[in-house]
Amino acid sequence: MKILRDTTPSQDGFHMPAEFEPHEGCIMIFPERADSWQYGAYAARRAFARVAEAISRSEKVTVCASAAQYDNARVLLPEAVRVVEMESDDAWARDYAPTFVRNAAGVLRGIDWGFNAWGGLYDGLYFPWDKDDRMARKLCDLLERDVYDKRDFILEGGSIHVDGEGTCLVTETCLLSRGRNPQMTREQIEDTLKEYLGVSTVIWLPCGIYNDETNGHVDNICAFVAPGEVVLAWTEDEEDVQYPMSRACLEILERARDARGRSITVHKLPLPAPVRITEEECRGLDSCRDEPTRTPGERLAASYVNFYIANGAVVMPGFQDPADQQAKEILQRLFPTREVVQIYARDILIGGGNIHCITQQIPAALAEARDPR
Amino acid sequence: MKILRDTTPSQDGFHMPAEFEPHEGCIMIFPERADSWQYGAYAARRAFARVAEAISRSEKVTVCASAAQYDNARVLLPEAVRVVEMESDDAWARDYAPTFVRNAAGVLRGIDWGFNAWGGLYDGLYFPWDKDDRMARKLCDLLERDVYDKRDFILEGGSIHVDGEGTCLVTETCLLSRGRNPQMTREQIEDTLKEYLGVSTVIWLPCGIYNDETNGHVDNICAFVAPGEVVLAWTEDEEDVQYPMSRACLEILERARDARGRSITVHKLPLPAPVRITEEECRGLDSCRDEPTRTPGERLAASYVNFYIANGAVVMPGFQDPADQQAKEILQRLFPTREVVQIYARDILIGGGNIHCITQQIPAALAEARDPR
Repeated sequence: MKILRDTTPSQDGFHMPAEFEPHEGCIMIFPERADSWQYGAYAARRAFARVAEAISRSEKVTVCASAAQYDNARVLLPEAVRVVEMESDDAWARDYAPTFVRNAAGVLRGIDWGFNAWGGLYDGLYFPWDKDDRMARKLCDLLERDVYDKRDFILEGGSIHVDGEGTCLVTETCLLSRGRNPQMTREQIEDTLKEYLGVSTVIWLPCGIYNDETNGHVDNICAFVAPGEVVLAWTEDEEDVQYPMSRACLEILERARDARGRSITVHKLPLPAPVRITEEECRGLDSCRDEPTRTPGERLAASYVNFYIANGAVVMPGFQDPADQQAKEILQRLFPTREVVQIYARDILIGGGNIHCITQQIPAALAEARDPR
Repeated sequence: MKILRDTTPSQDGFHMPAEFEPHEGCIMIFPERADSWQYGAYAARRAFARVAEAISRSEKVTVCASAAQYDNARVLLPEAVRVVEMESDDAWARDYAPTFVRNAAGVLRGIDWGFNAWGGLYDGLYFPWDKDDRMARKLCDLLERDVYDKRDFILEGGSIHVDGEGTCLVTETCLLSRGRNPQMTREQIEDTLKEYLGVSTVIWLPCGIYNDETNGHVDNICAFVAPGEVVLAWTEDEEDVQYPMSRACLEILERARDARGRSITVHKLPLPAPVRITEEECRGLDSCRDEPTRTPGERLAASYVNFYIANGAVVMPGFQDPADQQAKEILQRLFPTREVVQIYARDILIGGGNIHCITQQIPAALAEARDPR
């Protein structure tokens, strides 16, 4: 694996493909951390396994498991899934597996962003995070792809969405947070995204989902479903604290133009009724450095937007909520060539994210298109 | 990865190719164990890196490193080498990386033999050995190859050599040792080799190199260089304890017929003068469960036969011995299309083996020939 420091993806003719473009495969991480996942992650591991199984029907899934969990992962996951040993601090492949970029010849490379657990010592969620931070590079080596070193810029994969045609979606609350790149201006951050993702237009939504502890990752509130088309997490309940947040995003999207000059079609995806963590669930969570990680009654950042687009499926969360079916029907209409698979995801949500957060696509490369080695 | 339990390689039309046939790549393990490798394995890691570098010039090398040594491995090894995280008890890829078998269509599968650290609780070299024992299966999963489960049979890769045309070489001291498969007769052991390696003839040499703590692995005394041709570690010094041992092997080889009915041409490869571990080196070795692992003056099982045949090179040990050059010239004559690379290997030898012991070839498969998944 070559570590690229002297050029950027844009300079080399690389850009990040959209998630709805064909994949070579998908990366996941087996959950283990007992202060993130209730009751020793027993239920979470089974929920992750169901997600892996659904994705593996149409693309290769590689699951990273710690040495301690390797054998268990091998037993819980289907034969078609590849298990590799790799230590981590937690299980958020979206946020610290590499972001992949591709050139016109089909060569694939990774980007190794800096990772600091969603805010570092300022408002990060755990310490230390060095194992997570090492994963992008390890995964590029595993996959035999060269990697751009951009560890001087803090970014999680869940805080960006691209259309593959020059447009990137982000949120201000996250990208401008004090815990990430406080020394950089908004313009410098935008320029970095353009340089590394190969985009020319960045659409800044003001915020994400209420109480999303990632400082409001875009992938929980808004996602491209096609060039020029997004889904937006939405509630009609004007009393809900989420209402003005989604409304503010809608207003930005309605005025926006993408990199090709198109206006954006917004498909509203209903939110489930507020999901709150129970006392029983909180009792199953270990403390993190003496502090409880959740308090009973706390509202979780549940959203149907947090789905993964696989080659043959859209794998989306369900919450045993009346809106489950409606959200599923909307996505099925928007992805007519893919099977929408809804997986009960409360056991993932409790950890602080959802199906999109625990997956990272590897775009399809041309088989022979490789950096020379 | 599929685990195959109901059939054997022979039944499925698979056999083990010879090492001199084309490779897809090579597996190595980064050394770390301070009771095997003097002074915290500092010099051993550099010697392993030189071996990896030499092999990587003509085939893909994958080095397994522990989480703790991963970053260091990545720095010490060349870019062309892939580093993957995988825990182990020690660094003998030959003995516990999978043995690969291939069918006529070019499909590759692994065999997961049982491993018990060269003799288990009877005369094994360390305890526990569970991490080593898990590696064959993990590596097959990593390489996306199905694997035959033969963990009920104790075998190390260094205790077999094949010609790829139906013949296998072993030693009696090792294969019939009390610490491996004492419940099996010689005939049952031979039948198992035939069934799993896809061979029809097993040539039993009486013994290996003097004081070889593997109970005399064949790969330290005798190796195929072509069908019908072997090199045999040899000394002309009739007073050397090795003399009658090599002589006994020669007599067997001179009478043997291989699977195709050919007699065996034996090329004698000189041994270096006895290599003994120094007091200084012993001081650099941690104890293993309170016991010293070497004693000063102990003779090490040095042999030039312990080389690795890469696609474009033969990577062989050197001992700063007058015989180094002669041995190199013999191998260069026997492998005229490959460059013979001699690497000073005392720092590997101290660990108990040599270049062949720390490598395992992955035979070339047809790119598209894969088990269905």
